[in-house]
Amino acid sequence: TRSIDLAVVAGDGIGTEVVEQGLAVLEAAVAGSDVKVSTTEFDLGARRWHATGETLTDADLDAIRRHDAILLGAIGDPSVPSGVLERGLLLKLRFSLDHYVNLRPGKLYPGVTSPLANPGDVDFVVVREGTEGPYVGNGGALRVGTPQEIATEVSVNTAFGVERVVRDAFARAQARPRKHLTLVHKHNVLVHAGHLWRRTVEAVNAEFPDVTTDYLHVDAATIFLTTNPSRFDVIVTDNLFGDILTDQAAAITGGIGLAASANINPDRTAPSMFEPVHGSAPDIAGQGKADPTATVLSVSLLLDHLGLTEESKRVEAAVAADLVERGDRVRTTAEVGRELAARVLG
Amino acid sequence: TRSIDLAVVAGDGIGTEVVEQGLAVLEAAVAGSDVKVSTTEFDLGARRWHATGETLTDADLDAIRRHDAILLGAIGDPSVPSGVLERGLLLKLRFSLDHYVNLRPGKLYPGVTSPLANPGDVDFVVVREGTEGPYVGNGGALRVGTPQEIATEVSVNTAFGVERVVRDAFARAQARPRKHLTLVHKHNVLVHAGHLWRRTVEAVNAEFPDVTTDYLHVDAATIFLTTNPSRFDVIVTDNLFGDILTDQAAAITGGIGLAASANINPDRTAPSMFEPVHGSAPDIAGQGKADPTATVLSVSLLLDHLGLTEESKRVEAAVAADLVERGDRVRTTAEVGRELAARVLG
Ligand SMILES: CC(C)[C@H](C(=O)O)[C@@H](O)C(=O)O
Ligand SMILES: CC(C)[C@H](C(=O)O)[C@@H](O)C(=O)O
Repeated sequence: TRSIDLAVVAGDGIGTEVVEQGLAVLEAAVAGSDVKVSTTEFDLGARRWHATGETLTDADLDAIRRHDAILLGAIGDPSVPSGVLERGLLLKLRFSLDHYVNLRPGKLYPGVTSPLANPGDVDFVVVREGTEGPYVGNGGALRVGTPQEIATEVSVNTAFGVERVVRDAFARAQARPRKHLTLVHKHNVLVHAGHLWRRTVEAVNAEFPDVTTDYLHVDAATIFLTTNPSRFDVIVTDNLFGDILTDQAAAITGGIGLAASANINPDRTAPSMFEPVHGSAPDIAGQGKADPTATVLSVSLLLDHLGLTEESKRVEAAVAADLVERGDRVRTTAEVGRELAARVLG
Repeated sequence: TRSIDLAVVAGDGIGTEVVEQGLAVLEAAVAGSDVKVSTTEFDLGARRWHATGETLTDADLDAIRRHDAILLGAIGDPSVPSGVLERGLLLKLRFSLDHYVNLRPGKLYPGVTSPLANPGDVDFVVVREGTEGPYVGNGGALRVGTPQEIATEVSVNTAFGVERVVRDAFARAQARPRKHLTLVHKHNVLVHAGHLWRRTVEAVNAEFPDVTTDYLHVDAATIFLTTNPSRFDVIVTDNLFGDILTDQAAAITGGIGLAASANINPDRTAPSMFEPVHGSAPDIAGQGKADPTATVLSVSLLLDHLGLTEESKRVEAAVAADLVERGDRVRTTAEVGRELAARVLG
């Protein structure tokens, strides 16, 4: 038997509800196999911060590190000042565990209505850099609250950091039928960072000669995501542009209720983390209204990352089948989870 | 008689073609009035740079300053290294002439097909900050071309700069029926800059108590622009987020062939600049294929800025009427311009 030790960070708002269903589907996926899942819950998020003032301690991080993977629900609550949990918990996890590949599929499943009139066959994946760029927290403010206030945010980009994520994106493109990679940046304005990204894509392309590439400025990318999203295969981009484009990608493929993501440490020096793209949605929390599908699809990415390819495919297939048949039915979070688990069990 | 001295920067690619039609419509708008338009053409862009190595000299800038307004076509050509003309010419104009309000309407005109299935009644305006943020050119690179390369981009935000553009946006919101202002930023990650923006909106709101406000993270804004764009009235945001959102806004309202923009110096210490949102489109340049409508709508913004409100309205009405009737007709750039001018003449 193989045992998988999972760190579970349900977090805030609807996080608890969707993670519960994600775990149920995970159990269903390994049922009857020699894989055993054990979970450790970590009390992180708004409640913990209010109680103790802590976001993520060194001890938390050490304990999390000892797991094979992390399943995260959602982080954030209006009662906590903006940035405290995002920087101190979510981004701290991504940065500390070196999740340099933030993988976000943009796929329009059959049966799902896109807000686009003619979406076409949308099936791409965004490789968002996860440990650099404008997200590094390198900035500050001077004379805060005075007419002389100045606030800066520094985007830090290194050859080391860009090259590793670009190489990962090329490898993913090579493994896909279309073998196409689009770099998105804004190198006509952000010339230093942009040119580093561009030169890196050109250089790494030599290792993947059968992958074709093109380049789009981030503003143009939002246009193509609206007018011709089927043109995309693999997109590689920086942390901030990736954040923006993946929400837009979620919108055109049926909404963030369906959008999965994986924060991957490809070198496996620390556990990777799987989380829905959506947030904690405090307005609907505790009401059983949240769609757990994004979390379930994140579980599929988790299984794939752990080498459980068949199990991963079964979970995705269950979601795909559910999406074809769900129609306008209103179901609770638990009902969706139960039906998905049943489909996975076959 | 009133004379308007216009600096004309046709620029690269389709810039020349669309500006020619923009000027024809401008002439039509003032025909028979006591307003006389005189134009000075400035040879700026790729050709000039190839010939002389110059982008925008102090003498150019001095000469441009002596005009009442600037009409710009498009800047940029693949033969020029990325960033040279953007930073050295286009952004230099915006920054030197203190165009701190980059105004970009997002309006779905009747007759125009949106790529969205149910766009609703889209009529908002983006007030994009034009002289700060990640566009300041404050960054650099070290050990370029080595595995140790590091490239930074610094977003600079000042209370002075944020407050003036926020106040302008509030004034615009107050003048509109819905009186609603949405701040877009990413203050949960870019905490220093984001909190400056947020505090400023809260503070300036006191001067405009009848304007309601809300806040969206930039990623969420791309979702709403896809699923519910009619929710927006006035959006105020930073230079980079504004760049991204206005291209997406153009996409959902019929494409950049229709998207106008105004780079405004509200204090009138230097001429404001009016330009289509689209670029130089070298692939279709010289073929009479470009749609001059975005430039003509920019001329409407120019007339409005110069206090020629009736003329501005007539130009916009001509475009609106043309959009209702154009259907699938294929017309040359000149034909569109001629028909618009004819409509303006009545
Ligand atoms: C909550 C926030 C810090 C986060 C991000 O910006 O990465 C979220 O938007 C996401 O995309 O996962
Ligand atoms: C050409 C480029 C520098 C410019 C910008 O980024 O502002 C363009 O995209 C725009 O929106 O006017």
